[in-house]
Amino acid sequence: MSEPHPLDPFFRPASIAILGASEDFVKISGRPLKFLLEKGYPGRIFPVNPKYERVAGLPCYPTITAIPEPVDLAIVAVPAALVPEALGLCAAKGVRSAVVFSSGFGEVGEEGARLERQLAEVARGSGLRLCGPNTLGFMNTFDRVMATFSQAGEGETPPGPVAFVTQSGAFGTAIFALARQRGLSFGYFVNSGNEADLELADLLDYVVADPRVRVVSGYIEGLKDGRRLLAVADRALELGKPVVIVKVGRSPAGARAALSHTGSLAGSDRVYSGVFRQKGIIRATQEEELLDLVSAFSLCPLPGGRGLGIVTQSGGAGVLMADRAEELGLAVPELADDTRAALRKVIPAFGSIKNPVDITAQFIADPALLQSALGIVLQDPGVDAVIFYLGLMERFADQVVANLRDVHARTRKPLLVAWAAAPEPGLRALRESGICVLPSATRAVNAVRALVEYAEARNRRGEERPGIETAGSGGGGAAGSLIQARRGKGGRVLTAGEGFALLSRYGIKVAPSRLGRTAAEAVQAAEEIGYPVALKVESPEIRHKTDARALRLNVSGPDEVVRSFDELIANARRHAPHAQVQGILVQRMVHGGTEVVVGLNQDPQFGPVVMVGLGGVLVEVLEDVAFRAAPLTRSDAEAMLRELRGARILEGTRGRPPADVRAVIDVLLAVSRLAMDAAGEVAELDINPLLVLPVGEGALAVDALVILAEPSDAETRAGLAVEGR
Amino acid sequence: MSEPHPLDPFFRPASIAILGASEDFVKISGRPLKFLLEKGYPGRIFPVNPKYERVAGLPCYPTITAIPEPVDLAIVAVPAALVPEALGLCAAKGVRSAVVFSSGFGEVGEEGARLERQLAEVARGSGLRLCGPNTLGFMNTFDRVMATFSQAGEGETPPGPVAFVTQSGAFGTAIFALARQRGLSFGYFVNSGNEADLELADLLDYVVADPRVRVVSGYIEGLKDGRRLLAVADRALELGKPVVIVKVGRSPAGARAALSHTGSLAGSDRVYSGVFRQKGIIRATQEEELLDLVSAFSLCPLPGGRGLGIVTQSGGAGVLMADRAEELGLAVPELADDTRAALRKVIPAFGSIKNPVDITAQFIADPALLQSALGIVLQDPGVDAVIFYLGLMERFADQVVANLRDVHARTRKPLLVAWAAAPEPGLRALRESGICVLPSATRAVNAVRALVEYAEARNRRGEERPGIETAGSGGGGAAGSLIQARRGKGGRVLTAGEGFALLSRYGIKVAPSRLGRTAAEAVQAAEEIGYPVALKVESPEIRHKTDARALRLNVSGPDEVVRSFDELIANARRHAPHAQVQGILVQRMVHGGTEVVVGLNQDPQFGPVVMVGLGGVLVEVLEDVAFRAAPLTRSDAEAMLRELRGARILEGTRGRPPADVRAVIDVLLAVSRLAMDAAGEVAELDINPLLVLPVGEGALAVDALVILAEPSDAETRAGLAVEGR
Repeated sequence: MSEPHPLDPFFRPASIAILGASEDFVKISGRPLKFLLEKGYPGRIFPVNPKYERVAGLPCYPTITAIPEPVDLAIVAVPAALVPEALGLCAAKGVRSAVVFSSGFGEVGEEGARLERQLAEVARGSGLRLCGPNTLGFMNTFDRVMATFSQAGEGETPPGPVAFVTQSGAFGTAIFALARQRGLSFGYFVNSGNEADLELADLLDYVVADPRVRVVSGYIEGLKDGRRLLAVADRALELGKPVVIVKVGRSPAGARAALSHTGSLAGSDRVYSGVFRQKGIIRATQEEELLDLVSAFSLCPLPGGRGLGIVTQSGGAGVLMADRAEELGLAVPELADDTRAALRKVIPAFGSIKNPVDITAQFIADPALLQSALGIVLQDPGVDAVIFYLGLMERFADQVVANLRDVHARTRKPLLVAWAAAPEPGLRALRESGICVLPSATRAVNAVRALVEYAEARNRRGEERPGIETAGSGGGGAAGSLIQARRGKGGRVLTAGEGFALLSRYGIKVAPSRLGRTAAEAVQAAEEIGYPVALKVESPEIRHKTDARALRLNVSGPDEVVRSFDELIANARRHAPHAQVQGILVQRMVHGGTEVVVGLNQDPQFGPVVMVGLGGVLVEVLEDVAFRAAPLTRSDAEAMLRELRGARILEGTRGRPPADVRAVIDVLLAVSRLAMDAAGEVAELDINPLLVLPVGEGALAVDALVILAEPSDAETRAGLAVEGR
Repeated sequence: MSEPHPLDPFFRPASIAILGASEDFVKISGRPLKFLLEKGYPGRIFPVNPKYERVAGLPCYPTITAIPEPVDLAIVAVPAALVPEALGLCAAKGVRSAVVFSSGFGEVGEEGARLERQLAEVARGSGLRLCGPNTLGFMNTFDRVMATFSQAGEGETPPGPVAFVTQSGAFGTAIFALARQRGLSFGYFVNSGNEADLELADLLDYVVADPRVRVVSGYIEGLKDGRRLLAVADRALELGKPVVIVKVGRSPAGARAALSHTGSLAGSDRVYSGVFRQKGIIRATQEEELLDLVSAFSLCPLPGGRGLGIVTQSGGAGVLMADRAEELGLAVPELADDTRAALRKVIPAFGSIKNPVDITAQFIADPALLQSALGIVLQDPGVDAVIFYLGLMERFADQVVANLRDVHARTRKPLLVAWAAAPEPGLRALRESGICVLPSATRAVNAVRALVEYAEARNRRGEERPGIETAGSGGGGAAGSLIQARRGKGGRVLTAGEGFALLSRYGIKVAPSRLGRTAAEAVQAAEEIGYPVALKVESPEIRHKTDARALRLNVSGPDEVVRSFDELIANARRHAPHAQVQGILVQRMVHGGTEVVVGLNQDPQFGPVVMVGLGGVLVEVLEDVAFRAAPLTRSDAEAMLRELRGARILEGTRGRPPADVRAVIDVLLAVSRLAMDAAGEVAELDINPLLVLPVGEGALAVDALVILAEPSDAETRAGLAVEGR
């Protein structure tokens, strides 16, 4: 059994009251009662409705307060306008939790939003935990708790090791139905509704903790507090429970719909993808893939590597799977000599003993062929998972299933079956034997990819405790005094000099530079730094120096410094007459190296996030960047770089030597430390470019833009960042 | 009825002989007879087998030559070693065509390949057209011709407007079975086998011409002659018959499997994608998508634009579809004011009148809502196609189907239904009403994308006859004399000077340049061109001038020219002691502009193909290039540029003015003309970089590498290019 959890009274109530209970089992207010009775909910049920004395044979109470016993969960299905009062009575009665089906709240406009805030206040004031409003409710099929009016409650609802939490009711119900069609059973089905009190992450937190749950799945449109989700994901990764999520709202039109649908923010999709990868959350693109992956995770062990063995009855399907595997970064390794020699003995000449291994239709005549070929491939040292593809197969399905069951029982590697146009009894028999079977070749490959991705996330976690490497020292740390100094001067934008100083405090090397307030000072600075130098107008108000013609490169002697000094200052004044110009920053010209952009940002969902990209067109045109939530581990930083489409550039292309990737990783970790120290004080930071020199020579920040948070934001964010640690 | 076609005796035989016929209907040699009898093939059937006098009640002949009547098609299922003789007898008897089921040919090694060549020789020598060997054969269900032993022949095989031609037998059968599961009927099912004689394109050519066929689909692993496929695609586009293809063998492992499977070349996947787009061939990623698209094309009219209206019962599915639509380049437009006003009157407050339009579950209580909302959205001027999403819906399915049927009957825009977890009777009813229904939200969006892509290809074709703009003048044209001159000197690589001359003849502007054979000549050239200049060693053997240190930029005066001349020549000699060095090419330095790469290549499948990419990392690291088969139309060239991931760079980014895209298109068309003129003489051509100046200022070739074909190749390719026209 699980540890006690604050949401036990909600998810595993000893007693349930149904407000507005009805004997009309077609009505929203009648269906939960029907389901509870049908499924045999073992706790106490209290119908509440002043119109009846008894409902479905149970004593009915005129009000919630009239119930003589404690109530763990109240189901509320009264009209929106009456909900605040009803909930107030629940709170007064000491009801521990409630699920509010009623719609007409935040989703219908300002008046509804006002009502919804009232519900949230009742919850906050009383400690009653509230799910909804505007929710289908939930089922906990382990304990036969049916607090829902969803059609999903009709028919058989056997418990299973999968939990599903969804922000969309109707779509969630469709997904539940699809799951049932393929024999996949959900232990929890939960719709979070408008999330006036309990948010998606709260609900996920509970199901992750339940020892009966082995795989967690969800549908997300937007999060109010992304850090909470990450904390749950961390916990799930620790427990080895895969979390598979469909996250929508990626496109502008999608985001528009998401806004009008749940009133929550959709967030930047690129940030979602980055932090999901960081925390081992597997992202599915749509509902069928979600269920494919859930099925694979609930039935397969994790693979030890990326090597996929393909055994097929159709050469054509084999090629298709090999294509897809390599597209997804899996290996389709050449088989070992021993493996091929063994296969040669069993596979007919017109088959193939190379991976993909084509056993041909011969295995129908010779059932031992299937078993021996699969067994041989599963034992190949380079093969970490195997997919067996089966095409049209009506007459000999029983034989094939028996053979597969046999092979499956004897391997500890994942064995998936891709069976197109499979007969229903064959599918059922495989599932009952605990074999993951999917309806198409490529979908099986997608599932193996997800198994590999999760296994790798687990391994990373095993190697490295998050946070240790890069947690800051707290309380503003090295950043504090600099930030306070800037705040004292009243601005939010640090000068380049201040920015460089901040970076230096975190061990980030900067291109040597000094401020010249006069032309003479600039010349002196240049002499000390050494020619050629770059000259940049120093002004917090002038951020785009090229546009303002406030930048000159390759200045090679004192005369040119003097001449340029006046010109640049004049250009800057023309461009921004009211800008505070402090002088000219004289900087050593650094040649060669690869341009990288490193950034820090405050994401509305996930708080401080660190970004990296490759400079030039890759960032500016292709938006080839990777995000992770701070704090980063070293392997997070490494993964960020690997994820870039242009990653090969750092390995050295076009005649360049390999770049000092380690130095970039150190800078990312330093920025992460800064983010945690500054705890929301730094709204944005851009090191652009960070010039990465050849291996062993490090990386130099050539320009830095640091923007502090609005003072009020900073306080809020400080809270977020601390919680996120 | 269709025009007479040379393959009529194969696909619509008046008589069929079955060699090795058997009454054992489980055997490969027995199944065609069973199918022909069961389905009521109306022609004459002649079993041939010396062991029997009668087979299944039909007179049986000892040899093919003993048949007293003409035979259109022979089905051959005798052991491989006996096939050449059997086929020889068929030819002697005057049999018009044959399908050879037998395996043991090219797919099993050299001995088999030798046997296969014998079959090809019989076919070539006699005019008998041969499908196979190693094929499942084919079905023409329109005419009840069942020349197959595939399990696909079992059960109902009603004719339908879809033809399916596959290079994989087993996978093809699985696809056939999947199609039948979803009520999709194939008029033709054809497996091309080893293609000793009839190739995939021959078979496609026939089914495209059949007026009963409206949609053509296929599975391809590799083509022997890609130009033939393109010719068929051209014809299909003219006839308005969509061609939907799964092409596999994209990855190295996939290509490995394809090689061992069919013995054909996989070809470069990027070239396949380019020429497929060019010819309006729709590429599906896998079998389920193939059938989704076939279903959409066979039931939906073509949309007039890219605007997708989404009407949904689930907000969640709406967001998911909007995401997918924008990912695929469809528009999910804001609806017109009128549309929204009309929707406001019918949709409940908790729904959404924005696109995606959420009608909520309310339409169950109020069936008119579905009809009116769909009708209103279908009439919006910005909406070209509509998807209606339906979730779990068991009880009211009949009602919903009736409503949809009504709306569908009254619109001329494509209306697709995405129905998750749909009940079988509901699906059947929709299909019978001619409504395209798909099982998931995103799959419906993919289908609309394909409809749009095809509609656009049709429109392009309507606007412009391919070939006209860029067909060369033939016979070597402007390229001829230059190429002959180089051949006379014995080399295959043109010097930069020769390359520039070649480009100039096709109207491509080149950066002004002159050859200096001595330092003095170089100075004179530089004076005439004007400083600064670039100096490049002129040698056909030194292709990578940077690596050889045989290049100097920004040379600003005569002294530097003289000094550089000697240094560069010395560097070149050190780098390649045996290279023929002709002097130094002096070229005007061109500043600014965007670097583009334009190329010409001889593809093993598709003959001359033209390539474009954006210079620098985009080509070199991200391989962001687009291919099309020559000859190009102007719209082909435009589409190539649009297809580049970095296309935005040409629009002007990072403070640059928009580039002269028209000039790039003119260069692509010029290279296409050159390709057609040179008819295989030019093996490779690279203009790298082509410097594209701001709009109106044109584009300049700065470097050109031209490699001629080996003389023997050139002849073969000349044939290809002429045929391709």
